[in-house]
Amino acid sequence: MEIRERALRMKQVCPHMAASGEELRNAALRAVSDAITEHKAEILEANEADLAAAKEKGIPAPVLKRLKFDDAKIQDVQSGIEELIGLPDPLDRIHFRREMDEGLILERRTVPIGVIGVIFEARPDAMVQVSTLCLKSGNCAVLKGGSEAKNTNRKLFSVIYDAAVAAGLPEGCMMLAETHDDIDELLKCDDAIDLLIPRGSNEFVKHIMDNTKIPVMGHADGICHIYVDAAADIDLAVPVILDAKTQYPAACNAAETLLVHRDIADRLLPAVQETFRANQVELRGTEDVQAIVDCVPAEEEDFHTEYLDHIISAKIVDSLEEAIDHINKYGSHHTDAIITDDDEAAERFMQLVDSAGVYRNCSTRFADGFRYGFGAEVGISTGKIHARGPVGLEGLVTYKYRIYGSGQIVGDYASGKKSFHFKELM
Amino acid sequence: MEIRERALRMKQVCPHMAASGEELRNAALRAVSDAITEHKAEILEANEADLAAAKEKGIPAPVLKRLKFDDAKIQDVQSGIEELIGLPDPLDRIHFRREMDEGLILERRTVPIGVIGVIFEARPDAMVQVSTLCLKSGNCAVLKGGSEAKNTNRKLFSVIYDAAVAAGLPEGCMMLAETHDDIDELLKCDDAIDLLIPRGSNEFVKHIMDNTKIPVMGHADGICHIYVDAAADIDLAVPVILDAKTQYPAACNAAETLLVHRDIADRLLPAVQETFRANQVELRGTEDVQAIVDCVPAEEEDFHTEYLDHIISAKIVDSLEEAIDHINKYGSHHTDAIITDDDEAAERFMQLVDSAGVYRNCSTRFADGFRYGFGAEVGISTGKIHARGPVGLEGLVTYKYRIYGSGQIVGDYASGKKSFHFKELM
Repeated sequence: MEIRERALRMKQVCPHMAASGEELRNAALRAVSDAITEHKAEILEANEADLAAAKEKGIPAPVLKRLKFDDAKIQDVQSGIEELIGLPDPLDRIHFRREMDEGLILERRTVPIGVIGVIFEARPDAMVQVSTLCLKSGNCAVLKGGSEAKNTNRKLFSVIYDAAVAAGLPEGCMMLAETHDDIDELLKCDDAIDLLIPRGSNEFVKHIMDNTKIPVMGHADGICHIYVDAAADIDLAVPVILDAKTQYPAACNAAETLLVHRDIADRLLPAVQETFRANQVELRGTEDVQAIVDCVPAEEEDFHTEYLDHIISAKIVDSLEEAIDHINKYGSHHTDAIITDDDEAAERFMQLVDSAGVYRNCSTRFADGFRYGFGAEVGISTGKIHARGPVGLEGLVTYKYRIYGSGQIVGDYASGKKSFHFKELM
Repeated sequence: MEIRERALRMKQVCPHMAASGEELRNAALRAVSDAITEHKAEILEANEADLAAAKEKGIPAPVLKRLKFDDAKIQDVQSGIEELIGLPDPLDRIHFRREMDEGLILERRTVPIGVIGVIFEARPDAMVQVSTLCLKSGNCAVLKGGSEAKNTNRKLFSVIYDAAVAAGLPEGCMMLAETHDDIDELLKCDDAIDLLIPRGSNEFVKHIMDNTKIPVMGHADGICHIYVDAAADIDLAVPVILDAKTQYPAACNAAETLLVHRDIADRLLPAVQETFRANQVELRGTEDVQAIVDCVPAEEEDFHTEYLDHIISAKIVDSLEEAIDHINKYGSHHTDAIITDDDEAAERFMQLVDSAGVYRNCSTRFADGFRYGFGAEVGISTGKIHARGPVGLEGLVTYKYRIYGSGQIVGDYASGKKSFHFKELM
């Protein structure tokens, strides 16, 4: 069947998925975890095939590492499922219940979004995480994983889907998309898919954002900044900068640009450059920076660049305001930090920097659903509509207004015969 | 200056608008109300010019009525502003404050979305409502009203803007767009405008949705249904149906289709048809319906049509499920009601119908921000991302994560040297 037809059919399954109770959804999650244990041998075998093909293609070691799905990773995803089962149900939460008038009750409660399409990198653990997040939140899911994990994904999908349906969730509540053509098809299904969550390279996410009418949640660039204020503690600043740059340079929350207040530059920069040298980080500085430390010259383009590598750009600013303006102009509204002992400067920075995360005196690398205590994340959003920052279960639900009446008509309120009295019932 | 340049400049004003305190924003609102009083004569004069031009063009009476801005309407918008001032500040609300580890505090608090573009119908009161909602929520606003209200809007805008800036809000926090070319320009400003809220005809809203990468909040069609269940009270059903159809047929929450359970059809339909006849409503029924009452034949196309007129389509269904499927297929996910005395049927309907509003035993016309007790609404959204249903101040804000650290680096948590302990602080 065509992707489009399957997606449209999924749309019809949605209400039934939404109506599945918490108990059933948690039982399905437990069944999924058990099925992974039961089919472990086949899953590992499928993963071996992917790894062999990837090695043959000469795929780089870090990618291979992410592609590998072994006992340890299986244990991780299973404890992730356990944790997810323990999380409170995101559905049927009543935001408020209001008496509009006698016998006329308005209520707002959470419901799933509907059909969510998630396109994720070649990490088999992502397949488990994403599909179980969708199950927990009562959403139907179209899942497309990185093609290098093709065999593992296919096996994992059938294990997960079969277990979920056997547990009682509706048939057709999940589907697997496998090819790039499938993605192109999906992008056109704005009448069937409610939300797309693409993960992966900037170009890929940008391509998705530019080629669909479906709302997209995610981030393309992650150009994160660290601004070292005049009143910074240098001993605190240096390890934070190093961590933000090198703890995992390929992550979207790694720092790409260092902004330094002029008053502290000649003390901070030599200390930072020493640490960078010891850790193979290339510093690219403006002329001001070059005047203080020996470094590679930075061009305008550097401040627009997400290196995802052991490279960092640096610039000296004359004021907090200049730093804020730079960040709002060049940044990607992801996560930016100020290092300062000055409460007022920190407050002003956190107030005026227009990013999903604004930090004081710590590494930008903390921008992550697990570290925020959300249990799991489906992605990080730099958009301002719907969810922002690391997105957990909460970003996968919307709400519905219910009114329970007893024959009320608007004519009576328009004519003044009746009037609203709004009384909160909870 | 070009719209685009002005919008980009506005983007830079945003953080300062966001940082304006509650007191200042409320003072600005008070100043706006005072300025409207002060400049009333000029505003009424400008409105006279619009009315004269509209009459000359032969614009229909209901449109003229909406265009007219008189003492009574000025009083209405001013009491609206008073109410808005009294509403709690939507900004700086702290959703949670969590200790991730000692000296590492995560906080989520509400912030404005940024730059909001609102395109609204030729009603001068809308100009006041929309601009003051944006002021209250700390958003910068691009305002484009219906061209028939050109003179009134221009006058009102300058009164509102001048008062807001004189009160201390940043220059450039609002701008007026005046022509259709301006709208086309705005649609391209996805790097400057964070959210578009178009109101007006279906075709117009659809045009906006189809021609921009900016997130759009609103609704095109409003195809609302009333389903009369087998267990309905006919005496309750008939006035509710009549109200939903005729209380204000041009509204998006007016009912367009009546679905009737077969078991009650031969008792309900004659009663409904009698009332429709007495109120000049044209009933368009399927063959089943025609067999019970004399009416105009309904075509497939009728069930896709938002009449916005004294016309209603009708169909007989064999079950609650058929009604739900019909609504999810033909509806616009706006507002749909069930008339029934059966609790279980009502629950099932409200659960499975995928609309922003699902009602029991009352008119669909209740779908409105004022009637919901939100104080004011900026529009009604049929989208599921971000705000849904009638959207008040809450839909004009997003949030930001702040972390207050004391030198923490992620490396320490990755290595196991430190660990998170997540403690809720509020």
